[in-house]
Amino acid sequence: MIVKMSAHATATEVDAIEAKLRDLGYGVGKMIGSQVTLLGVYGDIFKLPQDDIAQMPGVERLIPISRAYKRAAQKGDALNPIHSPVSIGPVTVGGDELTVIAGPCSVESESQIMESARMVKEAGAKCLRGGVVKYRSSPYSGWEGLGSDDQDSLRRGLELIVKAGNAFEMPTVVEILDPTDVPVYEDSGVACLQVGEPNSKNQALLNRLRDTPLPVIHKRGNSLDTEAYLLWVERVMALGKENVILCERGIASCNKYTRNTLDLGSVAAFHYQLSGLPVAVDASHGTGVRDLVFPLSLAGIVSGASVVLVEAHPNPLIAKSDGFQGLFPEQLRGLVRAAEEVWRTRRTNEREYVTTAALERDYEGRMQDDRKRFFGES
Amino acid sequence: MIVKMSAHATATEVDAIEAKLRDLGYGVGKMIGSQVTLLGVYGDIFKLPQDDIAQMPGVERLIPISRAYKRAAQKGDALNPIHSPVSIGPVTVGGDELTVIAGPCSVESESQIMESARMVKEAGAKCLRGGVVKYRSSPYSGWEGLGSDDQDSLRRGLELIVKAGNAFEMPTVVEILDPTDVPVYEDSGVACLQVGEPNSKNQALLNRLRDTPLPVIHKRGNSLDTEAYLLWVERVMALGKENVILCERGIASCNKYTRNTLDLGSVAAFHYQLSGLPVAVDASHGTGVRDLVFPLSLAGIVSGASVVLVEAHPNPLIAKSDGFQGLFPEQLRGLVRAAEEVWRTRRTNEREYVTTAALERDYEGRMQDDRKRFFGES
Amino acid sequence: MIVKMSAHATATEVDAIEAKLRDLGYGVGKMIGSQVTLLGVYGDIFKLPQDDIAQMPGVERLIPISRAYKRAAQKGDALNPIHSPVSIGPVTVGGDELTVIAGPCSVESESQIMESARMVKEAGAKCLRGGVVKYRSSPYSGWEGLGSDDQDSLRRGLELIVKAGNAFEMPTVVEILDPTDVPVYEDSGVACLQVGEPNSKNQALLNRLRDTPLPVIHKRGNSLDTEAYLLWVERVMALGKENVILCERGIASCNKYTRNTLDLGSVAAFHYQLSGLPVAVDASHGTGVRDLVFPLSLAGIVSGASVVLVEAHPNPLIAKSDGFQGLFPEQLRGLVRAAEEVWRTRRTNEREYVTTAALERDYEGRMQDDRKRFFGES
Amino acid sequence: MIVKMSAHATATEVDAIEAKLRDLGYGVGKMIGSQVTLLGVYGDIFKLPQDDIAQMPGVERLIPISRAYKRAAQKGDALNPIHSPVSIGPVTVGGDELTVIAGPCSVESESQIMESARMVKEAGAKCLRGGVVKYRSSPYSGWEGLGSDDQDSLRRGLELIVKAGNAFEMPTVVEILDPTDVPVYEDSGVACLQVGEPNSKNQALLNRLRDTPLPVIHKRGNSLDTEAYLLWVERVMALGKENVILCERGIASCNKYTRNTLDLGSVAAFHYQLSGLPVAVDASHGTGVRDLVFPLSLAGIVSGASVVLVEAHPNPLIAKSDGFQGLFPEQLRGLVRAAEEVWRTRRTNEREYVTTAALERDYEGRMQDDRKRFFGES
Repeated sequence: MIVKMSAHATATEVDAIEAKLRDLGYGVGKMIGSQVTLLGVYGDIFKLPQDDIAQMPGVERLIPISRAYKRAAQKGDALNPIHSPVSIGPVTVGGDELTVIAGPCSVESESQIMESARMVKEAGAKCLRGGVVKYRSSPYSGWEGLGSDDQDSLRRGLELIVKAGNAFEMPTVVEILDPTDVPVYEDSGVACLQVGEPNSKNQALLNRLRDTPLPVIHKRGNSLDTEAYLLWVERVMALGKENVILCERGIASCNKYTRNTLDLGSVAAFHYQLSGLPVAVDASHGTGVRDLVFPLSLAGIVSGASVVLVEAHPNPLIAKSDGFQGLFPEQLRGLVRAAEEVWRTRRTNEREYVTTAALERDYEGRMQDDRKRFFGES
Repeated sequence: MIVKMSAHATATEVDAIEAKLRDLGYGVGKMIGSQVTLLGVYGDIFKLPQDDIAQMPGVERLIPISRAYKRAAQKGDALNPIHSPVSIGPVTVGGDELTVIAGPCSVESESQIMESARMVKEAGAKCLRGGVVKYRSSPYSGWEGLGSDDQDSLRRGLELIVKAGNAFEMPTVVEILDPTDVPVYEDSGVACLQVGEPNSKNQALLNRLRDTPLPVIHKRGNSLDTEAYLLWVERVMALGKENVILCERGIASCNKYTRNTLDLGSVAAFHYQLSGLPVAVDASHGTGVRDLVFPLSLAGIVSGASVVLVEAHPNPLIAKSDGFQGLFPEQLRGLVRAAEEVWRTRRTNEREYVTTAALERDYEGRMQDDRKRFFGES
Repeated sequence: MIVKMSAHATATEVDAIEAKLRDLGYGVGKMIGSQVTLLGVYGDIFKLPQDDIAQMPGVERLIPISRAYKRAAQKGDALNPIHSPVSIGPVTVGGDELTVIAGPCSVESESQIMESARMVKEAGAKCLRGGVVKYRSSPYSGWEGLGSDDQDSLRRGLELIVKAGNAFEMPTVVEILDPTDVPVYEDSGVACLQVGEPNSKNQALLNRLRDTPLPVIHKRGNSLDTEAYLLWVERVMALGKENVILCERGIASCNKYTRNTLDLGSVAAFHYQLSGLPVAVDASHGTGVRDLVFPLSLAGIVSGASVVLVEAHPNPLIAKSDGFQGLFPEQLRGLVRAAEEVWRTRRTNEREYVTTAALERDYEGRMQDDRKRFFGES
Repeated sequence: MIVKMSAHATATEVDAIEAKLRDLGYGVGKMIGSQVTLLGVYGDIFKLPQDDIAQMPGVERLIPISRAYKRAAQKGDALNPIHSPVSIGPVTVGGDELTVIAGPCSVESESQIMESARMVKEAGAKCLRGGVVKYRSSPYSGWEGLGSDDQDSLRRGLELIVKAGNAFEMPTVVEILDPTDVPVYEDSGVACLQVGEPNSKNQALLNRLRDTPLPVIHKRGNSLDTEAYLLWVERVMALGKENVILCERGIASCNKYTRNTLDLGSVAAFHYQLSGLPVAVDASHGTGVRDLVFPLSLAGIVSGASVVLVEAHPNPLIAKSDGFQGLFPEQLRGLVRAAEEVWRTRRTNEREYVTTAALERDYEGRMQDDRKRFFGES
């Protein structure tokens, strides 16, 4: 952290801040320019009372140098990053194998979710997803899920998908919207909770999820910067919870053709640079266009995702919600086959991935020679 | 609503849709082009089972022609729009007078909120605001409000601000984060609830607020299109609730200098074209820069807002949260005085505001002559 | 095209528009609702004088139903789309093989571009790129390219890269900034012109490029919607030019970690749905982070790109511009090898890609049965 | 400027950078933490060879502390900022009076521009605007301005607007698209050049305008951050040119209802904090909705603009371009009257505008007491 003093700060003010920081146990470095004085702060930045410091006399602003999250951050170093798998029931996510999580937008009836589970299993996916309470942008859409009436209806809806998952030996992933409902989900046998995009910054819900033993897929809010999102994820992990899965599902932009803009640059940044958590990609919401789900899911894998979240339905033409982006059974089968192939290719290709950290030192040694060769500098 | 058939739709499919729509009681108009067939649907679009229609064979997509919200929509017509005031305790919002709602980001202690209330009253503002549970982007910021521990702490925190409001005869506005807490707020004597930006699409919370008799200030999510936001507002109003206040507090964009981009074009659209609800503008969050709050709050009034929401603190240098954007007491006083002046100017100037609806017919009558005059066309 | 009449339009006004459209040779369909009247227009929409119609009395607005571009649009149909290759010198782009276009941000000296060309050739790329006049966001950066002084310096700079390309038998791609310079580029032996992102909407330059026989890589402006970009591409093609290559290089968003947001959803939309032109992906500018160029270039291929545009330098640590995103030689070699592998995988996997158009009819036939099965409807 | 060393930088590398900086005449401060070493650089940052430094061994990145522009920057200090007026012919812009620049999107004919000039004069505006070559998003719109054929047609088109301006004693503002055309504009008698949004980053055009004695209105590109825009403006001014006017005309965002998002937060930042140049606001393009031009132009003035740029037409219903956003004559008259009133109110209200710089010192003195009073801290 750097403390930038304002142009009219006095020497006394600078001294007061240095003293305060040293009192708190931090190391302090000072750089005094003709117009600007900077103080560098060394120590555990996560414990620094930033607001207090920022409001001391003469301070203009704090300039962060290091990351503001640590549990969501990548461990290891640039040459040997550490990625930690997460378990969804018996399925290990984020390890050596790809995980496809598929299913309908909504659980609509017992026969529908049972047939959906069969479809998902036969396609080769490992987990079953399905919503029991649904987000709807319009309050007049007439369908907010089987479980939207009260906790009893929620309980019955969850029973249906858990039963279907059990029948085909797949753990289930279901979205949660209300912090009050956590016990109902925990008791239902659901294997994994999902926080949807509209709740990505829902502090009451995120705080409540700190306690649950269930893994959580935390979707990125569509206006959150790459690292600002990790700070919201950090909220769920702040007290020690570790089984969290990142999910990119599209951000807002100037685009109109696709429903959202799937940000695969952030997927790559999460996996290769910033975080050790498994990364999921949801191209169903990320594009909102059924025939783009195939290429974008695969591109997500190549970018660094090890989880593909995808909507599919035994007959999307009669789905009660989001049918326009749900895959047909044939499309789901094709996607899972292709995804496995792309996953193998990515794993092989990673041998060709040479990070800058591995090369920089060598090229530094050649700089003087290269300058001479190219520019005639001596 | 227009139903666009896909290029390969059959005549039978077109007929089936027409029959279905007529069965549902809608009028249908048909336009058959060489490449595209369109069906126009007449009737109460809010009751149309859109998903069902969208998924019928041969349908490419539905193209909305009218607005998808009705309670949040402006009543009256373009020449005589109707605006409905909302009461916050004894204060009428959205009528002939401007309302400034001011106070600290957080209720920090009894003496702090009491002195804040005095400051707000003396500055001439009408309502007191203050958070008892606070959003924080970092889970390590060390302060989430006096009421963040449990419902008891929440109750005690709300008591403090209500007491301060009572002492200075001002109704109070407090943010709510968790649907479970609604009864605590209702019992506390708080006059108005606020839904913050991170909860703008929190379906569980919005659904729960349909029942409360308290007025609700519903802040716009920072990635919501102008009309998409009104559809989330409509959710709160869907069962008949009417006392809702819109609030623009900045959207996400390419900007880095300001914390958010205050979208005053949408404020003007809300007030002059789309909605009859009162519109608030929050330049504190909308800019995140203390010295821009003054000009932007005033610009918000000129754009169409009748409510100014603003953060101020008896000494922002020691505020526990958001001190960098909170006004100093002198700044709050200056703002309220200037706001009243700008409000009067706007009200006078509205006599100069001539809508297109009032002119179009006349200029249509001159079109032939004008074409001749300008382009020599006969 | 649909003409939406305003709510207060008279029958006479509706008749006048219908008459005007029929005079112009268009078919007209009319749908008269209780509140809104719509006119459907059939015929060659590209010749419709839209502004004239939009300003006729009683018209509220025009609602486009079909695409506003035709030469940039995909030919064929959803089941058999037609993709047309483009030649860059002897290299066929957009056909059965992947094309990697690599080289330094800037041509810096003869020895530097010669060694760059050797590096590009040895890595297995097919075309050499390099800038002779450079965009710089700061006017004080002190380097705007060897050719930035005048047309003579431009000529000498172009000579260097053409010579290097010839030495290693690779055609060259160079950016053009000023319409006046077209003849200099054409005479230089450069094989392909590039329009950079900052010039994506530079009408004078785009109009000028309509005449050049050289192929043009037209980069997407970072605030252009997917289809709005195709309309600017259409400008270059409007008089018949066909050898144009699309290029996605990142759009503006809430992101700060990556320099831009590479929009691979649009890449997939271009290739699989909207256009028949070859699509390039530029992950160097699309991420601005050297170690993300590898995964994102590969993801671009999987999304639908057949061209990879990438910056690389014999020693990026001494590059005069954009060195932070330029690949090291080892990284370029790894990328080309992996790209070839990913390209083969994508081509194989496309057998698994089943479009909705191929399935929809079948599932329509099952809708009644499926409804009965899932929802008990008869 | 701060130089952040990478985690694995050696002491030798740090020393080499320090030596290099000192050689260049800069002062250097060093802060060595347990994980990160930072070097502070003091001196004229505009002359620092940043790219060279950034690519030295061991450097991770440069972190700018001060602004990257200086001529576009505000002179004076926070308490006494200096604003420099610019002359458009005999009209002084950016001083004590408001300037309204109005006119049609395009010059369409002699009689049309003559009547437009009369309308503008009678409404009370001071300058006449009108395009002779027009941007069009579609190449098929069929109208690109009277001057779009060649330089002869351009010359004749410019003659028409200059003649109209002279007839009503108003200087004229016309957009330029092609650097080649600068002499034609200079010879025509046009008083001010405008760089449109699509050309905001057109380096060839901006470089060419460094020489012209004519004032330039440089519109902000719709994906440029507040300060990134000022860096493009700096390009025009880099060799000493001073008569440049800023213009906000809307940025890209999630909004669909308005054509662009008018960013008045940046307008306030330009005027009150960042720049000494006059600021114009263009609500015609900033909203793209005729009936929002009135409130948003006024809001622009309150935000800090001293110039209002607005499209108007004697009969917008027959305008050849952008008629949907052009004001009717009555609307222009109303706007100018209201704008004058709002301008006076702003000037009066500025007495109530108290900057933080004027208060901070006092409140710093009270911090200890206030902490004690509010939090019981001693």
